[in-house]
Amino acid sequence: MRKLVVLKFGGSSLANPNRIKNVARRVVDYKKQNFDVVTVVSALGDTTDDLISLAVQINSNPSERELDMLLSTGEQISVSLLAMAIHKLGFNAVSLTGAQVGIVTDTHHTRARIVSIDCHRINKHLKNESIVIVAGFQGVTQENEITTLGRGGSDLTALALAKALKANLCEIYTDVDGVFSADPRIVKNAVKLPFIYYEEMLEMASLGAQVMQVRSVEVAKKFNIPFHVRSSFSNNSGTFIAGSISDLNKLKLQVKEAEMMEGALIRGVTLNKNEAKITICDVPDRPGVAAKLFKHLSRVDINVDMIVQNVSHTRQTDISFTLSKNDLPKALKATKTVAKEIGAGEVLSDLEVARVSIVGVGMRSHPGVAAKMFEALAYQKINIEMISTSEISISCIIQRKFADKALRVIHSKFLNRAK
Amino acid sequence: MRKLVVLKFGGSSLANPNRIKNVARRVVDYKKQNFDVVTVVSALGDTTDDLISLAVQINSNPSERELDMLLSTGEQISVSLLAMAIHKLGFNAVSLTGAQVGIVTDTHHTRARIVSIDCHRINKHLKNESIVIVAGFQGVTQENEITTLGRGGSDLTALALAKALKANLCEIYTDVDGVFSADPRIVKNAVKLPFIYYEEMLEMASLGAQVMQVRSVEVAKKFNIPFHVRSSFSNNSGTFIAGSISDLNKLKLQVKEAEMMEGALIRGVTLNKNEAKITICDVPDRPGVAAKLFKHLSRVDINVDMIVQNVSHTRQTDISFTLSKNDLPKALKATKTVAKEIGAGEVLSDLEVARVSIVGVGMRSHPGVAAKMFEALAYQKINIEMISTSEISISCIIQRKFADKALRVIHSKFLNRAK
Repeated sequence: MRKLVVLKFGGSSLANPNRIKNVARRVVDYKKQNFDVVTVVSALGDTTDDLISLAVQINSNPSERELDMLLSTGEQISVSLLAMAIHKLGFNAVSLTGAQVGIVTDTHHTRARIVSIDCHRINKHLKNESIVIVAGFQGVTQENEITTLGRGGSDLTALALAKALKANLCEIYTDVDGVFSADPRIVKNAVKLPFIYYEEMLEMASLGAQVMQVRSVEVAKKFNIPFHVRSSFSNNSGTFIAGSISDLNKLKLQVKEAEMMEGALIRGVTLNKNEAKITICDVPDRPGVAAKLFKHLSRVDINVDMIVQNVSHTRQTDISFTLSKNDLPKALKATKTVAKEIGAGEVLSDLEVARVSIVGVGMRSHPGVAAKMFEALAYQKINIEMISTSEISISCIIQRKFADKALRVIHSKFLNRAK
Repeated sequence: MRKLVVLKFGGSSLANPNRIKNVARRVVDYKKQNFDVVTVVSALGDTTDDLISLAVQINSNPSERELDMLLSTGEQISVSLLAMAIHKLGFNAVSLTGAQVGIVTDTHHTRARIVSIDCHRINKHLKNESIVIVAGFQGVTQENEITTLGRGGSDLTALALAKALKANLCEIYTDVDGVFSADPRIVKNAVKLPFIYYEEMLEMASLGAQVMQVRSVEVAKKFNIPFHVRSSFSNNSGTFIAGSISDLNKLKLQVKEAEMMEGALIRGVTLNKNEAKITICDVPDRPGVAAKLFKHLSRVDINVDMIVQNVSHTRQTDISFTLSKNDLPKALKATKTVAKEIGAGEVLSDLEVARVSIVGVGMRSHPGVAAKMFEALAYQKINIEMISTSEISISCIIQRKFADKALRVIHSKFLNRAK
């Protein structure tokens, strides 16, 4: 039985002719191992940014339909060039746009969702021993309008194709070696994780590990598509992401059993310096008050991150929440309006905060994890302003000036010992 | 009844954001005059050359299918940007790729021919008061493979759309003011021609007037599509090209009657410095010899231009022909092979020739035109090496060093007097 692999290469892996040739060699390597190969590519290097800047010179508020028309050319350029590079190595290859594949999306230009994928044309080419190269990030509506999938769209294309084609493996090639236990620029002895669960990857993506967009990981989790994030610039194995270790074992891949069985409680420590904090004091403690506040914020399009409200012993309580720094002015205005309406007290804000979090599926059944994190912070005399926990993560809001120190001390407490 | 105009803008008219805005204003001007407007655009400035150079860095002999995939992005970028520029002026506009329109071609990648055009989608948008912007130069096969139409392909798209949509007028905007009586860079007092016949334009295009590709004019002639070649950088009227003056009058356009009735015998004088000459001496004068020679040349893909064989008084004759300079080495080799086979004599070649021609539908019924041309050359002591005549042109091969002088003296003899 044939094995099928779906590979995805990002823009930095394709930034110049030599890198394109390098990608061609990687793709061909799989073909030589008798894999059927489908490759998804993003636009070359900075093409997308260059096109947007051209558009904005012409119309500062370009129509989303026309933006999709414009931006989808970036991936079309990539697919044809990669096909040429593969031909040069003596292998068959054929490039396809999203429309040619039949990647049908809804009609939300610049952020469309994939509705269905027609595998017929890809399968025909695979049967003819062709490597198939698909333009990522793009699709087409039922009315034949070109759409794009938004940030991280090429990852989505690759994952959706892996699912639709029942691929044995999906590899996401990027410019980093994989997912690390903490940001290696801050924590020198951070380790590359051989494996993490979807849920952990989701937490880490949303908490600021910039390897993949949350949306792509959500799709992988939803459809249980195991994938491998690795670097196109080295031959090192990267990080496998799956729903269970047995799903990965089924793939019979090069993940070492020893690495898999390590069973660390905590997968990684993440840091987000891009948050701000708002506190409403003396909120009347009655039903519907929180709903009113957050409904109002969502109406003005503000994404709230952590929310903390403590049990109240009086008739009043405090509610604190965090959000993206950029949204603070808009959010403050909206919060003050609601505070007045509901008869709450002062509204305070703080831009100088950071969020440090530990993530790990293992922690839910292990008591003492939270205590260990708080101890680490206390040891460095770092005050905790807010605490929030989920089943697989614990987050603390601290003063931003302690952020890097906090990351290092927590990483050292949990992860160095586990090695 | 609504009037429909098809406008076509070439790459130099769209080379930067300001020029794109300028084109948008021109397009909108027609809409303000209550025209339905369909605009065909080429790739911006040097985009096509840039893409080809990128391709060649990756594969010196890229597949034609993949080249089409690559190059068709150029026009897709143009259509979206022009749509954005028109939106900025407050008008509705929608961009369409060749595939979206339904411009169906045959399967000859890089030089496809249009098989059919589906007007349904364009008409729908026109009905909604949208300006429709169509990517030139490209189409799609019945199998949904992207094709391009070859050099001058955007002109073809515009003319074919004008025909299919029954347009009232087709305007080809370029970077010159129109078709001139001679190359204005050589002949200072050359005049812009208000009108020429298809046949004349065909002769002038093939004889080196670089305004349009022969193939586009052939299509216009075949389907009798009058069109107007003019500059996108001025508001001057350009040159109308049609099958008859009455066809133009039917359009009730701004061509002045006086200009139309001038009835010049000679429309223009053209020069081609890109030819070489081959002569086979002492060719046995028997049937089938010329056929054998030119069949062999066509087999090795050589396009022969003029052919001259004089009446023979002996059993032998000389055959001379001209061809593109670039083809000379290949053609010489082929000719020598055939010369040997048929028992002919020496094969001579000359790279230092030029072709000067007069073109005009009027000349066929007027004796003395040829004599006047030869007199002009004799006056300047320029020797004529070959003469060839068609119904609407007379061409002389002369030494290249006299080329510019020959062009001036003939232009002066015929055209200045006509003014």
